[in-house]
Amino acid sequence: MVSTIKTLQKRIAVSQQLQPADFILRNARIADVFSLIWTTADIVVADGMIIAIDSTGSFTSVEEMDAKGRCVVPGLIDGHIHIESSMLTPSAFGDVLLPHGVTTVVTDPHEIANVAGVEGIEFMLKDAENSPMDIYVMLPSSVPSTSFENSGAKLEAIDLQPLLTHPNVLGLAEVMDYPSVLRGEEEMLAKLAMTQEAGLRIDGHGAGLQKEQIRGYRAAGIQTDHECVTAAEARDRISQGMYVLIREGSAAKNLNDLLPTVTSHNARRFLFCTDDKHLDELVDEGSIDHAIRLAITAGMEPLQAIQLATINAAECYGLSEKGALVSGFEADFILLDELETFKVAAVWKKGIQIAEHGVMLNATPSQEKCSVRISQSVHLPAITKDDLAIPFSKGSKATIIEIIPNQLVTNKVIENVDVVNGAFVANVEQDQLKVAVVERHHHKHTIGLGIVKGFGLKQGAVATTIAHDSHNAIVLGTNDVDMLVAIEALQDIQGGLVVVNNGRVLASLPLPVAGLMTQVPLEVAVKSLFELHEALHSIHPNLDFHLFLTLSFLSLPVIPSLKLTDTGLFDVTTFQHISIEAHEKADH
Amino acid sequence: MVSTIKTLQKRIAVSQQLQPADFILRNARIADVFSLIWTTADIVVADGMIIAIDSTGSFTSVEEMDAKGRCVVPGLIDGHIHIESSMLTPSAFGDVLLPHGVTTVVTDPHEIANVAGVEGIEFMLKDAENSPMDIYVMLPSSVPSTSFENSGAKLEAIDLQPLLTHPNVLGLAEVMDYPSVLRGEEEMLAKLAMTQEAGLRIDGHGAGLQKEQIRGYRAAGIQTDHECVTAAEARDRISQGMYVLIREGSAAKNLNDLLPTVTSHNARRFLFCTDDKHLDELVDEGSIDHAIRLAITAGMEPLQAIQLATINAAECYGLSEKGALVSGFEADFILLDELETFKVAAVWKKGIQIAEHGVMLNATPSQEKCSVRISQSVHLPAITKDDLAIPFSKGSKATIIEIIPNQLVTNKVIENVDVVNGAFVANVEQDQLKVAVVERHHHKHTIGLGIVKGFGLKQGAVATTIAHDSHNAIVLGTNDVDMLVAIEALQDIQGGLVVVNNGRVLASLPLPVAGLMTQVPLEVAVKSLFELHEALHSIHPNLDFHLFLTLSFLSLPVIPSLKLTDTGLFDVTTFQHISIEAHEKADH
Repeated sequence: MVSTIKTLQKRIAVSQQLQPADFILRNARIADVFSLIWTTADIVVADGMIIAIDSTGSFTSVEEMDAKGRCVVPGLIDGHIHIESSMLTPSAFGDVLLPHGVTTVVTDPHEIANVAGVEGIEFMLKDAENSPMDIYVMLPSSVPSTSFENSGAKLEAIDLQPLLTHPNVLGLAEVMDYPSVLRGEEEMLAKLAMTQEAGLRIDGHGAGLQKEQIRGYRAAGIQTDHECVTAAEARDRISQGMYVLIREGSAAKNLNDLLPTVTSHNARRFLFCTDDKHLDELVDEGSIDHAIRLAITAGMEPLQAIQLATINAAECYGLSEKGALVSGFEADFILLDELETFKVAAVWKKGIQIAEHGVMLNATPSQEKCSVRISQSVHLPAITKDDLAIPFSKGSKATIIEIIPNQLVTNKVIENVDVVNGAFVANVEQDQLKVAVVERHHHKHTIGLGIVKGFGLKQGAVATTIAHDSHNAIVLGTNDVDMLVAIEALQDIQGGLVVVNNGRVLASLPLPVAGLMTQVPLEVAVKSLFELHEALHSIHPNLDFHLFLTLSFLSLPVIPSLKLTDTGLFDVTTFQHISIEAHEKADH
Repeated sequence: MVSTIKTLQKRIAVSQQLQPADFILRNARIADVFSLIWTTADIVVADGMIIAIDSTGSFTSVEEMDAKGRCVVPGLIDGHIHIESSMLTPSAFGDVLLPHGVTTVVTDPHEIANVAGVEGIEFMLKDAENSPMDIYVMLPSSVPSTSFENSGAKLEAIDLQPLLTHPNVLGLAEVMDYPSVLRGEEEMLAKLAMTQEAGLRIDGHGAGLQKEQIRGYRAAGIQTDHECVTAAEARDRISQGMYVLIREGSAAKNLNDLLPTVTSHNARRFLFCTDDKHLDELVDEGSIDHAIRLAITAGMEPLQAIQLATINAAECYGLSEKGALVSGFEADFILLDELETFKVAAVWKKGIQIAEHGVMLNATPSQEKCSVRISQSVHLPAITKDDLAIPFSKGSKATIIEIIPNQLVTNKVIENVDVVNGAFVANVEQDQLKVAVVERHHHKHTIGLGIVKGFGLKQGAVATTIAHDSHNAIVLGTNDVDMLVAIEALQDIQGGLVVVNNGRVLASLPLPVAGLMTQVPLEVAVKSLFELHEALHSIHPNLDFHLFLTLSFLSLPVIPSLKLTDTGLFDVTTFQHISIEAHEKADH
């Protein structure tokens, strides 16, 4: 927090009791995250800063409150999140998270950047300013994820460089294209070099990497990993000088596996993150507060868990006035009804109470207005059944994507399929459905077609513009008519999620902000989401996994083994497009 | 270390074993300062960086060495030092410290700044570049220390601001004028505000401050304290969110008192510093290596002591690639013959061996040339006996400075003195000597005179231009003739230290760099220092304390209780000049 002479003068005067403070939270049991002890004292606040932790009761203030001996901890920090995964804009996202005590997040606007490039990142930065939450940005390092698809934007070092001087930009986000790092490709290294030159941080993405590869990451200056899934990986990252972000999100849940690696000696190198967490789960169970609860349940000393969630995250990202309750730090703190369950009674941001018992006292009044590029980002072609036809020779075997419910990885299987009039037709009994990825950014009219199994849809079609990472439209269907209706519906609502049956849209969640996010009030969004789930269950009564989540990652061509982009079926193992008609022997 | 794409490419290629490393130190027992464990492996180096800590032995390199299982620890970091106290310029200072394993220091060029202002700071920054040691600068915050003296320069915020962008400037040095901070004086706060705005660090100087005053420091954004002398003070600073620099220098030795406050939880907030340490002691016992030895002797786990001396200091000052032996960090490390005694066998800086068994392999070849303002900084007036006369009424009592050997504080005593022809004369039996501070910067012809006891000098005179903080000439004598000779000698040698007897200069150590430092080869400087001590003992056979050190601080008007500046006798308690003729009752 940059200070003027005048604000410094006020803070010092208050600290010396020459003038009253703005606010005092009296009789608080305060977490000391530097020494891991509790101290009972008053928290004295002026100008959004903590001015004193005072045990004499001698300070005076304009306003005060009695904590009645309850625990007070620093505002929580999420070290790595993609806000778009919540389907909310940053300002609305803040309203959901702040009541849970999360006062600062470090976000990677990777999704909107794939749709709208720098304009998308700037929208996120601007909208973030509407929120009392501190929202810092790491610049997306891999847009698009591969050259085997058409995205809305391509971001090179020269595009990102001007953003490095933005006060809320902390560095370069998860460098996930490890082959290009380890091959020393110039365009990737240009991004790393410019970030280092700016004195900023570089996040890694060491999913499944061996220590030899992590070594290459470190040689390249990459400093964090949030993709550890085993204790051995976490220990390796720590021993190689990385910070480890223990992730507990909607899909990836690594906390219980990683927690045993935290010791009193190495604890300073661990922090928490959610990475991707959906709206309903954020509302229901929270985010970093949920991680603390899980850690306490798993047997971690509460103060240790709180340290990970506060000062450790602040130190990792160089936020030198955040994460502790001491004079000279920002007055972000949480009053707890109970420590063990981490039940949040009230939350203060920069010394102002903003939430009570899970509810914002004042919702964020305004959201950033979207530019046309962002609000009108869906440019789907008018397509016909012919466009969805998969020509197929009778008797041939088909290369089919087999999804694994709730997972990002898929299997490649070879099977016989039904063919009518020289083209594939879906077979719900065999669970062989049609899937299409339709380019929706630049009128390219590219449509990738594939056959998928594992979704178990018995009727109708579903479609969404949340289709990682390029966020084209992806549609899954039991018949072409419903698929066409679904695509048309996505165009009508400017992106989002739709459920279609018998030629009719059963439910939809419009996400007109880049086809990824909504700006409607939270309760409206939650209601739409509920109705969408109801509709989905009406055409898929036995559904027991995140169908839209699984569908959304079917188009991500960097995760094995078989994926579909708008330019066709893609074999991630060999990193090339392949044809649907298999030249291999069928499995059955 | 800012990297180009090309250097990143080489590092990555070496990390992936696609090309040989520059150097490998094989079979090393490596200190892991993140987890406080030892690991046996090879340290692989390229381009000055550690590329791998490898336990397979599979890397190849251009050069290599076998550590034979001996311990290797990261290069040590001194968190706060005034290089001028060594009487060496930064480049020569590096040659003394590097063989002890100190590879990085954070210096406050406070002394030269008082003589030559910004030009002095720039000289230090430039000369530092000649050394393989990394020498970072904190900008002096209090030049001059008070307005009750004439210094060579006055540094305001506007003077310091351009230096904040220098890549080796880390922030604002020890803010010692706590009254002006706590009063919220604009000029002081301007320095704090501009440093915060630049995103840099601010060091404190909490000598003797109560927790209420430290609170004011914290409210002002001050982050460190190296002046803790009790465990209670250290605990207070830690609880208020400061870093505590445990000091072990020539005069102040706080390590044994503070060490018990370090726990495994709060250890991350402690580091070591020397503050002021003299050449002979640096040569004999080292600096931060000495602190580690003392800590181990005091019972601290060696890895914990090493952590304080390395990664903790690096984190405190935001040096994100220093202080640990992992891939991606700078290749600064020390091979130890023995851990327990911290006996240094060899030292590498940026992957190049620079010292072996206490000796630099190659002395730093060049030193920065001094500008005229720095090399001709002594402008003493031609003075006569009359200028040294202290007019005194027979029978009056005199206010006398009583020094305490080796201490910065003095007592104020009232005594009868000898008077001849209406003026004070020294009396060696009573140990009542004359002391003068002569302005030497800007031909102001101001001379402060006083009477001092406690030095015990029986004949001759001594003088120096190291006279904190304004570094005018200070001369102590048993007679006026020798004092005049001493002052003349200081002019002749352009500052330094001189010992005079019977009208003859017995020995001198010229310090022509701002009257504070020498540029002669180390062995010459050490020899001169030895001869000076011999000469001093010849006129003061029973000398058992640091006479020049004690004399040098007699002119520092911020330390109680009675001091002498070029503008006269100064009562620090009441913060005003007072007369020598006392209006109080004499003690004897």
